Order: sequence, then C-alpha cells, then structure tokens
Amino acid sequence: MDKNYISILLQRLRTQAPLVHNITNYVVMNNTANALLSLGASPVMAHAQEEVEDITTISSALVLNIGTLSEKWIDSMLMAGKKAKELNKPITFDPVGAGASAFRTNTCKTIIEECCPNIIRGNASEIMALCDSSIKTKGVDSTQQSNEALANAQVLAQKLKNTIVISGATDYIVTENSVIEITNGSPLMPKITGMGCTATALVGAFTAVEDDMAKAAAAGMAVMSVAGEMAVQYAKAPGCFQVHFLDALYQIKGSDIEDKLNMIVYEY
Amino acid sequence: MDKNYISILLQRLRTQAPLVHNITNYVVMNNTANALLSLGASPVMAHAQEEVEDITTISSALVLNIGTLSEKWIDSMLMAGKKAKELNKPITFDPVGAGASAFRTNTCKTIIEECCPNIIRGNASEIMALCDSSIKTKGVDSTQQSNEALANAQVLAQKLKNTIVISGATDYIVTENSVIEITNGSPLMPKITGMGCTATALVGAFTAVEDDMAKAAAAGMAVMSVAGEMAVQYAKAPGCFQVHFLDALYQIKGSDIEDKLNMIVYEY
Amino acid sequence: MDKNYISILLQRLRTQAPLVHNITNYVVMNNTANALLSLGASPVMAHAQEEVEDITTISSALVLNIGTLSEKWIDSMLMAGKKAKELNKPITFDPVGAGASAFRTNTCKTIIEECCPNIIRGNASEIMALCDSSIKTKGVDSTQQSNEALANAQVLAQKLKNTIVISGATDYIVTENSVIEITNGSPLMPKITGMGCTATALVGAFTAVEDDMAKAAAAGMAVMSVAGEMAVQYAKAPGCFQVHFLDALYQIKGSDIEDKLNMIVYEY
Repeated sequence: MDKNYISILLQRLRTQAPLVHNITNYVVMNNTANALLSLGASPVMAHAQEEVEDITTISSALVLNIGTLSEKWIDSMLMAGKKAKELNKPITFDPVGAGASAFRTNTCKTIIEECCPNIIRGNASEIMALCDSSIKTKGVDSTQQSNEALANAQVLAQKLKNTIVISGATDYIVTENSVIEITNGSPLMPKITGMGCTATALVGAFTAVEDDMAKAAAAGMAVMSVAGEMAVQYAKAPGCFQVHFLDALYQIKGSDIEDKLNMIVYEY
Repeated sequence: MDKNYISILLQRLRTQAPLVHNITNYVVMNNTANALLSLGASPVMAHAQEEVEDITTISSALVLNIGTLSEKWIDSMLMAGKKAKELNKPITFDPVGAGASAFRTNTCKTIIEECCPNIIRGNASEIMALCDSSIKTKGVDSTQQSNEALANAQVLAQKLKNTIVISGATDYIVTENSVIEITNGSPLMPKITGMGCTATALVGAFTAVEDDMAKAAAAGMAVMSVAGEMAVQYAKAPGCFQVHFLDALYQIKGSDIEDKLNMIVYEY
Repeated sequence: MDKNYISILLQRLRTQAPLVHNITNYVVMNNTANALLSLGASPVMAHAQEEVEDITTISSALVLNIGTLSEKWIDSMLMAGKKAKELNKPITFDPVGAGASAFRTNTCKTIIEECCPNIIRGNASEIMALCDSSIKTKGVDSTQQSNEALANAQVLAQKLKNTIVISGATDYIVTENSVIEITNGSPLMPKITGMGCTATALVGAFTAVEDDMAKAAAAGMAVMSVAGEMAVQYAKAPGCFQVHFLDALYQIKGSDIEDKLNMIVYEY
C-alpha cells in the first residue's frame, strides 16, 4: 500500500463511476451525494423497504449511516445490509453518535451483528462506544484523543475481522494486523457538519473498486484529507471551505496525492 | 413561443411571486427551496396528510418528486395531486429514478394515472422507464442519449395529452404536436445532485404564471440552462458552480435570455 | 442589556461550546447544524422517540421547529419538550408556517401548551397566527409588517410569561415589560431558505449560556443580523451570501458587534 496505489484507485473509481447505495441521515444527504458526484462516483439515496433490496442489488457498494435514525430506517438498513452480504457487496458503516444514547449504541450493535460491515468509520468517541457501552459521547464530535481509541479499534478489528477507521486530526485505518496513519486535513473540517459522513461515503465508493478493504478505506481517507488541505488554501472559514472542498474532490489528481499525502503503514 | 415571451414570463413570475407547493425528496429540498427563492417564487415544503390539501389549496402550483419515496409520502403526493386536479392547479411531476426499482416505476405509474400531471420532467432513462418498464436505469443519471428517449416521449405525450420534458445536454419539451429543443447549459450540471429536481421545480414555478404548459416548461428549462451558462463563467468545479448558479437565478434578466438562449421550436 | 454583554455571551458560548438539541425540519437541518458549528456551539439532530429524552438530557438547550411537521415528529417534539421542562432546560420554539394550515396552527398551540417554550421566534405572520387563528399566512415569508405583530406579541408574552421574537427588517425581542429592537441585517436574507430557522437555532444556542431569556434571544438575533451585514459585503446574491454568512458566524468578534449593532432597549 503506497501513494501510487491510491492514485490508481482514484483513476479506477473515475473510470468505473460505481453506483453507491447510501442509506444515510437527513442532515448530510445532500453533502454526501455531492461529494460522491464530485469525486466521480454515482450516488443513489433510497431507503424504502419496498426497494432497498433492489437498489442494493444494482449498486456496487452500500453505505449505512445512523445519523438521524428511527425504527423504520433501521429496518431498511438491516434489509439492505443483509442483501449486500448475501450478494457479497461491501458494506461501510458509520455509527454516528454511538454512545450518545442507548438507542444509538444498541442499533450499532445490531447492525454490526446482523450485517457484518466490512468497514466501520467513526470518530474516537464513537469507535470507543462500540467497544464499551459505558463510555458516553457528547454529541457527534470527537471528544477524546484518537490515540485513546486506537487500542480499542485494534481489539474490535480483531473480533470482527474487519477494518475500523478512526477519523480525527490523525486518521487511523486499523485491521487485525496493520495500522495505517494519515495526518493530512485541516482544523476547519470538524467545524462543518457531515464531514465524517462524507468520509464514510468516500470510503464506501472506494470499496466498489478495490477488494482489499483496508486499501479502500485508506484511499477514501487519503482523498478526503488531501482534498481538505487543497480546499483550505482558498478558504479561511467553514462556508468557503465547503465550496472549495467539493471543488477539490472534483479536481484532485494522482499528483496531488503523491505530493501531499502523509501516510505511514505499520504491519505486524 | 419565442425568447421574448420567456422574458415576459420571468418578469411575471417575479411580480407575482407565486406560492409553489413542493412534495419532494430529502436530498434536494434545500436546493429546490433556494432555487425557487432566488428565481423569485415562494416555496412551501409540506408533506403531512393532515395539511397537504390545505397547502395545495393556498398554492398556485404543485410539484411532486419521488426522489426518496416511501409509502406515507406517496399517499401524501396522491392526496395533494388529486386536490390540485380538483382545483385545476397545475401539477409538475419528477419521476426520479424511474426504472431503478419496480417500486419507483409502479409509483410513477400510479401518480400519473391518479393525478394526471400536466408536465413530467425526467432524464432520458427515466422518461423511457415510464414507457417501457423493461428498461432499467443505473441510478438517477442519464445513461442513454436523450435522442433515444424522444420518440418515447412523443408517444407518451400523445397518450397522456400532456407535456413531457427530457433534460440532458439537449433539453426537449414535447407535446403531441410540438418539440422545443434547448441546447444551453454546462457539462458541470450533472455533477451536482438535484439539478434535475431543481429544473422540475423551476418549471413548476412557471406553471403558476402561464396556462400553456409547454411554454411554462420551456421557460423553466430556458432559465435553468441559461443560468447554468452564466454560473460556469465563474466556476470550474461543482462547489463554486452551485453557489454561482443560485446567484445566476437571482440575477438573470430578460436580456440574458435574449442573448444566450439557443431554442428551436418544431410544430407539426 | 448592552452591546458589551452580547460580546461576553458570544465569548462564553465559544468557550463552553454547548450541546444544542435540534428537532427541526428536513429543509434546513444542514444549514442549522452548520450555523451552530460556525458560531461555536455543538449541534445534535435527533428525533426518534426512543432517544429524544436521552439526547435532551445530555444537551444544554432544546430547539423545536415544525417546518416539515408530521405526526411522529410532533410526538417527539412533545416528548423532548416535556423532558426539557422537567430538567429545567431552555426551549426555543419556531412555529414555521403557523397560519398556513389548521394542522400547523393547532400543533403550535399544543406545543406551546404542553412544553411552555421559553422563547418563540417567528416572522410577523407566524406570531400573529399564534394569537388569532383566523389570520392566514401565505407560506413562510413575512407578509405583514412586523409592526402590526408587535402589539400581538406583547399580549402573547404577557399571557405566556415568556419571550417572543418577531424577525424581519426590524427584529423585536418582546417580554411582558420590555421590547428590544434590532435593525441590522440585509434584504438578501429573506431570499435564502431557512434563515429564520437559523436565527431560532442561534437564539437556542445562547439560551444554553444565559439564564435571562430576553438577553439570550437578543444575543442570537444580534449575531444573526450583524453576521448578515458582514456577509453582504462579499455577496450580491443569495448563493454567495450563504457562503459568506457561515464564514461571518465563524469570524464575528465582539468588536464587530460593538461597531455595527443597532439595538434599542425599551423597558416599561
């Protein structure tokens, strides 16, 4: 896994323009769809139980996000997740606000048990809540250092045999025998709603074009954080940042990743 | 139907600021409302069965869009659609993703049968799915040449005695005895989510100020595509494009339409 | 209550970054969350009955907004509102579109009766609809002069023993024995969807850091309207305005409020 391979995946994604099925929250749907389009993927948002299996079937990847969860939406996520599993399509899961309520934490556990997501991406608090329900997060912002969550993520990845992504100032892509660290991005990113959800969606897009889930996750987080650095060159505050971030996703080239990406791969 | 008449309709719309009732999808609600406001209309988003008839009654036009459809929302669309029909208020319908699932295609057919929309606007795939359910679309992007859909649209317009709009690089406004072609716009437009939905909403706004549905549809598509050309002068990527597109809807004048619009009218 | 105290509250808000629980509408959720983040608060959007009480409990303030109301969401608002009342947490209520349908007007009355919101913020039409259900609004824009609503707001504030905010070209913060007038802002603001909802959310954020509700409301409206004036320096139309408005919420300093705010306090 090196920078050059991420460039290859980016090119592959733009060539294939994979259809990515998102069942996500009301707050970020528009951002997520636009980020996927700017990057070169083809988003579809559909949640009705009457059609989620059909949409999952024609899609190349599934992204589940519980940001504004309710009973019916959870049922749809479980239906879509099981269908994806049955058809061997990759699932990326965003446990938004895990730990903030018992309902969220329990829903996460149900989705993890019944759908076995290939990748789970959250901030440090959310990932820790998946390991130990006694940890309460304050909303959806990272309130604990990512480092604290890393050990938990390693245990979780080992238990679930999947890939865990902790996003923050440093992003960690964790499997049972590797950790990839990415230290790009901008302090403005947490000041914009749904940047975590967007990261999850980009990761999901890369799972459509790469079978190795850790590589797909690293590609998504790399593009996200390098695009963030590109955007901040034109923006000093969250409004302009959002605009230029979408532009950066559209304009980012392999050479930007080669030039800017700070990534370290640990295998053991 | 000429450019000058579109300028007149634009002026009329801004003077009357008609209330446009939208029952639309979660992804684009914000975009649609802002586009209508920038243009000069007055949007209202309301979907509860307890109030849709009241809101339709006080509005000048109804826009139905199935982008993130579910059972309850369909029921609301049918209630609002029947009320609009009863009160002789124009209905514009966006069959988002028709063909992508049986649920979507069947819902479109029900809405068309029960509400008889005056105008249906979709991309080529969606319009074709309304004619022949065996055609499957890949998501909501146009995957087939608009030309292929034109013949189908003519058959559909003849059958439904209404106006069909196929949007794409060339937009077609089709009735049983005419075709209007508009070739403005920008290749950036399909890279932004909900631009089709916005086109539908703008068309809907013009139905509030013009009884001839083909003329209203042409006015909506003309303003949409000329505003797109105005926006792209200030934008090279989707983030900035969105911002300047809203600005263009606010700033567009009759003279911009006179100068820029490429429109051909065929009557037979 | 003077400008300097608003600067102190702004500083306090940024230091404490209070968690603000929003149960709001689909159209503006993204705007509201971003405005709260830009200002320095921490938004959480959650509406499921299974968790609203938990989320209200961990939050410092509750904001209820009926923009796209439906039965289940109203039940959630009532649950959250009662919990907030029980825990003595401040409630800010936005009666979006009150008067446009009986359903809206009745829902507002139920929420006011059962949750006793500390602050109600609406445009002139909406506030008047809360006083006299025979007044019908045309959508959600202010269609009557704010002045006409002021007398009604004073009666309402007296009856409810709370704070009523009428927003418009002049904003009024009304209690049973005071009126605060703010005359900042920009004519572009009503051309953007959800600016009223954003005002309500900002007011809600200030209730988390100030016990005097009229002062909290004045702080929210002051920041809103001064940020609007800052934004309009960089923007001539609604698209750019939105971007720069978010930037202004992030960048606004106490000195901007000192320099620009036009506020008059009447006590009697």
